[in-house]
Amino acid sequence: MENQEVVRFEKRAFDALRPLRFQTNVNKYAEGSCLVETGDTRVLCTATLEERVPLWVRGTGKGWITAEYGMLPRSTNERMEREAKKGQSGRTHEIQRLIGRSYRSAVDLKKMGEVCIKLDCDVIQADGGTRTASVSGGFVALYEAFKTMMKKGIISSIPVTDTVCAVSCGIIRGVPMLDLDYEEDSSAWVDSNFVMTGSGRLVEIQGTAERNPFSAEEFLQLLSLARKGCAEITRAQKEVLKIG
Amino acid sequence: MENQEVVRFEKRAFDALRPLRFQTNVNKYAEGSCLVETGDTRVLCTATLEERVPLWVRGTGKGWITAEYGMLPRSTNERMEREAKKGQSGRTHEIQRLIGRSYRSAVDLKKMGEVCIKLDCDVIQADGGTRTASVSGGFVALYEAFKTMMKKGIISSIPVTDTVCAVSCGIIRGVPMLDLDYEEDSSAWVDSNFVMTGSGRLVEIQGTAERNPFSAEEFLQLLSLARKGCAEITRAQKEVLKIG
Amino acid sequence: MENQEVVRFEKRAFDALRPLRFQTNVNKYAEGSCLVETGDTRVLCTATLEERVPLWVRGTGKGWITAEYGMLPRSTNERMEREAKKGQSGRTHEIQRLIGRSYRSAVDLKKMGEVCIKLDCDVIQADGGTRTASVSGGFVALYEAFKTMMKKGIISSIPVTDTVCAVSCGIIRGVPMLDLDYEEDSSAWVDSNFVMTGSGRLVEIQGTAERNPFSAEEFLQLLSLARKGCAEITRAQKEVLKIG
Amino acid sequence: MENQEVVRFEKRAFDALRPLRFQTNVNKYAEGSCLVETGDTRVLCTATLEERVPLWVRGTGKGWITAEYGMLPRSTNERMEREAKKGQSGRTHEIQRLIGRSYRSAVDLKKMGEVCIKLDCDVIQADGGTRTASVSGGFVALYEAFKTMMKKGIISSIPVTDTVCAVSCGIIRGVPMLDLDYEEDSSAWVDSNFVMTGSGRLVEIQGTAERNPFSAEEFLQLLSLARKGCAEITRAQKEVLKIG
Amino acid sequence: MENQEVVRFEKRAFDALRPLRFQTNVNKYAEGSCLVETGDTRVLCTATLEERVPLWVRGTGKGWITAEYGMLPRSTNERMEREAKKGQSGRTHEIQRLIGRSYRSAVDLKKMGEVCIKLDCDVIQADGGTRTASVSGGFVALYEAFKTMMKKGIISSIPVTDTVCAVSCGIIRGVPMLDLDYEEDSSAWVDSNFVMTGSGRLVEIQGTAERNPFSAEEFLQLLSLARKGCAEITRAQKEVLKIG
Amino acid sequence: MENQEVVRFEKRAFDALRPLRFQTNVNKYAEGSCLVETGDTRVLCTATLEERVPLWVRGTGKGWITAEYGMLPRSTNERMEREAKKGQSGRTHEIQRLIGRSYRSAVDLKKMGEVCIKLDCDVIQADGGTRTASVSGGFVALYEAFKTMMKKGIISSIPVTDTVCAVSCGIIRGVPMLDLDYEEDSSAWVDSNFVMTGSGRLVEIQGTAERNPFSAEEFLQLLSLARKGCAEITRAQKEVLKIG
Repeated sequence: MENQEVVRFEKRAFDALRPLRFQTNVNKYAEGSCLVETGDTRVLCTATLEERVPLWVRGTGKGWITAEYGMLPRSTNERMEREAKKGQSGRTHEIQRLIGRSYRSAVDLKKMGEVCIKLDCDVIQADGGTRTASVSGGFVALYEAFKTMMKKGIISSIPVTDTVCAVSCGIIRGVPMLDLDYEEDSSAWVDSNFVMTGSGRLVEIQGTAERNPFSAEEFLQLLSLARKGCAEITRAQKEVLKIG
Repeated sequence: MENQEVVRFEKRAFDALRPLRFQTNVNKYAEGSCLVETGDTRVLCTATLEERVPLWVRGTGKGWITAEYGMLPRSTNERMEREAKKGQSGRTHEIQRLIGRSYRSAVDLKKMGEVCIKLDCDVIQADGGTRTASVSGGFVALYEAFKTMMKKGIISSIPVTDTVCAVSCGIIRGVPMLDLDYEEDSSAWVDSNFVMTGSGRLVEIQGTAERNPFSAEEFLQLLSLARKGCAEITRAQKEVLKIG
Repeated sequence: MENQEVVRFEKRAFDALRPLRFQTNVNKYAEGSCLVETGDTRVLCTATLEERVPLWVRGTGKGWITAEYGMLPRSTNERMEREAKKGQSGRTHEIQRLIGRSYRSAVDLKKMGEVCIKLDCDVIQADGGTRTASVSGGFVALYEAFKTMMKKGIISSIPVTDTVCAVSCGIIRGVPMLDLDYEEDSSAWVDSNFVMTGSGRLVEIQGTAERNPFSAEEFLQLLSLARKGCAEITRAQKEVLKIG
Repeated sequence: MENQEVVRFEKRAFDALRPLRFQTNVNKYAEGSCLVETGDTRVLCTATLEERVPLWVRGTGKGWITAEYGMLPRSTNERMEREAKKGQSGRTHEIQRLIGRSYRSAVDLKKMGEVCIKLDCDVIQADGGTRTASVSGGFVALYEAFKTMMKKGIISSIPVTDTVCAVSCGIIRGVPMLDLDYEEDSSAWVDSNFVMTGSGRLVEIQGTAERNPFSAEEFLQLLSLARKGCAEITRAQKEVLKIG
Repeated sequence: MENQEVVRFEKRAFDALRPLRFQTNVNKYAEGSCLVETGDTRVLCTATLEERVPLWVRGTGKGWITAEYGMLPRSTNERMEREAKKGQSGRTHEIQRLIGRSYRSAVDLKKMGEVCIKLDCDVIQADGGTRTASVSGGFVALYEAFKTMMKKGIISSIPVTDTVCAVSCGIIRGVPMLDLDYEEDSSAWVDSNFVMTGSGRLVEIQGTAERNPFSAEEFLQLLSLARKGCAEITRAQKEVLKIG
Repeated sequence: MENQEVVRFEKRAFDALRPLRFQTNVNKYAEGSCLVETGDTRVLCTATLEERVPLWVRGTGKGWITAEYGMLPRSTNERMEREAKKGQSGRTHEIQRLIGRSYRSAVDLKKMGEVCIKLDCDVIQADGGTRTASVSGGFVALYEAFKTMMKKGIISSIPVTDTVCAVSCGIIRGVPMLDLDYEEDSSAWVDSNFVMTGSGRLVEIQGTAERNPFSAEEFLQLLSLARKGCAEITRAQKEVLKIG
């Protein structure tokens, strides 16, 4: 199968992100909050500080970070049944485990003290890339929560060793592309998600052959696109967070 | 117990609504959508057209309108457990039944054809009055969905006989008040919700003694406040919907 | 639509209750019990004293009253699926919340001590008005439980400030009527439930337009019927409870 | 361990049933109904005719009989949690399977036609022997339902080949006894339930060593008590059913 | 109905067991384990020692034994739905209650100390008799767990007063038979399960008329077959456990 | 952190698999079956042919492959609660989705016809790598099922374009290692799973930083170990399947 002519929506370049925006302080109650928009995908992320920690860190002096993910029923083109009525799907479980894992290697759990921060990532509108947008926006909300904890004197410095963001890449009719929208995602041969730190190290890699198995070379091309995308997302995060 | 000095937040008058705003076209997929804001309460309402109708109208040629309600976990001051994890609470069931009922007496179900419109009212931020805001915002989303159906030629006129809105009233330390915020609601002696039509008729009345049983006279005072509030909400609805 | 000729079952007057009977001591284990019959509707109410109180009153020295409601599968004309198999419906949640709320404003929670009384209202046979019969019969069971607590020396006086009962009213083909049976309820234009105290004050008001929105005048007619009905129910409650 | 002096409540003989009463037509909707009382145990049994049959008899021309069992929360000394809230327990599953099985070998499923009869056995008050009372009372309700079907011309004769009843027996401190009440049941060394036909044949046998394994001889003594008890229950069933 | 010519699979005699094998130490983690095979039926039994005991023995110094039962989805001819997806069936509840009860009358609960042993009986392949195989194999796993507890010095002697095993019997076209396989079980007129001790006393008896009620004489024939079968199973258990 | 001295159990080389064995025909009912053992990890895989396909392939002429995963309660060192009692965990959902996805890109779904093959992977004993063992053993069971379908004339050739297997790799105290056992997995800094085809192409990649984010170079080392491991697993699969 040769590579075919592929034109993206609004003539976006193959290695370009969709328009990206982070907005903080979008919720009056949460310790940290961020509305992330990437193209038509919109995810509201809130970070809640809880004193109750899971059993496995109780008494260790360490903290914990966990995440929950949901989609509003009409965030999608076809209305989905509400998970409050049918229970959480396997996909939801998979995604919220991914989000929670993403931050734990970039945060000094000891320095955050024996507390738990719970991230809620709720998809207001979905046009592809909701899990990676959740990771990126969730990090901003998490960082904002740490700022709140500092202001309240709960911690004395931000216990973050690096920033964290995520992006999706895929191969569509032979062409590697960055940051897929829903239509692209549906026709991808290979679909992948990368979670990276601001300094360019890897936190999580997921690659799936949706149609044909892929080669290591192809995978390295996706990794290279992801690096470029994550560098841009990192810049946007740092800007909204007003850090280095 | 005599009436005590009560001062509302930002010196709001006892018979004044909080700042109110309806925004339409806030979701790119839904047949109709509306973000309603009243003070710090924000509810996203979407209306979805479904061809599948419930059993009890199947084959009757009539349509149906139903509603679902949810709150984002951190829409409240204390984070609530996600209903996708614990199932819908009794309160949620009660509210979504109320919302669905509210529209059915102001819509000509025969004229809308044998289809179902499902309203999703999701609370983004909660500061009192989420169920009445859902009814008011949901009506706007419903009306927008009817406009979409007209554009698509599914119906030939808007099958609505009157507009519908709702407001809460309560008695706080002896003083009847309109449109309670969360703090007021928590300390109310009597709590009530009124669903009314644009022409001032009643669709639903709910009054509850939270502390002391109340007299018929007190209840009539609340009804009178509700009439005033609903007249204003009706004006705002008609403005955003661009109807007479 | 003009009022049409409406004749009630057994030529009952429009403002007449169905035959009403309260029987106490119908369960050998419960602290209080009452079988209430109104027409063909029969509800068995038991009151259970529990030492464990809900979180929100723990340590306050105050008590709590709560209720659960159920219907036997063949209490209705068409057999209902057993809720033990499918979970409690929205309607059940709505009703048991109403019952629990009804008593809390007529009981001195401080005087009852830090205990919980749980009312179980189980419908043996349903012919309309099961929720209002539950409220009226439940009050008798509750009062009986307080008597038991006095006998056991747990409390020194009955911590009740007023009696509580409930009745339904509706408008059928234009005619306001008291205490609807199932068939009447099914064809009502407006359906309402009133919870009142023995002294005639209001505890809970619920009115719903089943077909057409209604006017305040119509609602006042229903309120007036409810007052008459509740006065009679109060007399019957006081007789069986042997109080003033 | 020798047999000790055992005296039963109200000096009941070891081979005597508790006072037994069957009442029919206790529900205005059900095709058949029976309230069975044995001592302080009271079970309400209703039989519902359903056109929908389970998959395994569909298209065979045969009917089916099934049962559901429940206990009101305060039917017991200590209030039980409502199964509508926590789901059906293992004990409930076990009992309702037993009840359903009991009738299928004494009914000509072919002659009843391709319909289903569902028995609901709901325990109003429990003082031991609720499952056997359910079997005995359920049979009366079932027979009444067959009478209703005959009156409606659905069947031309009662498709029953024999009557069915049940009784419990046990060994208490070495003494075999008939029809245990709750207190006896709690201290029994061996606990058994027998389902028998009016002609004395066996439908179901269950025997359990609650403390010590038992001998075949002991089991035969229990069987002999059960025969005596079932003969008496059969007489009472036939009397209320007005059959030979 | 006269007895018809019945020939069993591989010409097995009517009073013969299928080939039987117990294997211990089949799991590297469990305190005790046993794979039991009877014909093509294979059940893996593990015994787990838990320090946490149920509420009703807490503080009594006594131990407890409980059991859980499951079937792999394709252990049966037609694949069953996984119970992890649909919840445990009534049949599963019934069986695991039976297994747990079986051991409690042959173990000195006081001597085992205040601990709990949980037996997991998981059916790898099912060809009839899975519940009785579970009881027999579970006893071996239980005994092995007691050996482990002795080695660890938790108990000073094996707290077992007798061995326990189980077998099924049935009547097929008039002929009483021992140890039914799946095909035989499906066509049995009477189906029974016996749990017995090594010394020949009874722990549990269950007999069910699948088609016609049966006589006491027929039941005694089944009991007699069960005695013979259990004697053989006991021998095999003692051999693998290397006891008396 | 420098690389420390790490010695594996039984002095296994860092790039060596644990002893590996595939056994087919281990279940008498399933269309295909395989018991896979890798070290002390044992997974029973069965493949069931079902005529009912999921909605999204209905009418397309294409087939579907799906998987379910479970663990016996005592397959692990500490007994896990049975998922039939508590529902499937997020981890289970994640794993069974992975297994199902793995085969779909190496099977010609069109050639298999409009049927569904369901793989059940049940972990008998768990010592690390259960998900990758499930993928490898599941492929063997799947292939065996295709053989059965050929024998029965349902398909005319095996619709497989390549073999599929999986292996885990990780970095432990700085050292990349192949095929982690449970203890190694628990202390890994980076944990990864690779699903590959027999021809060495990639189907699924998953890498997670358990402690520190990792570099692309480190990830390539893991990929290289995985290639070596998968080549050996492929050989073992082909041998047991008797294919080229």
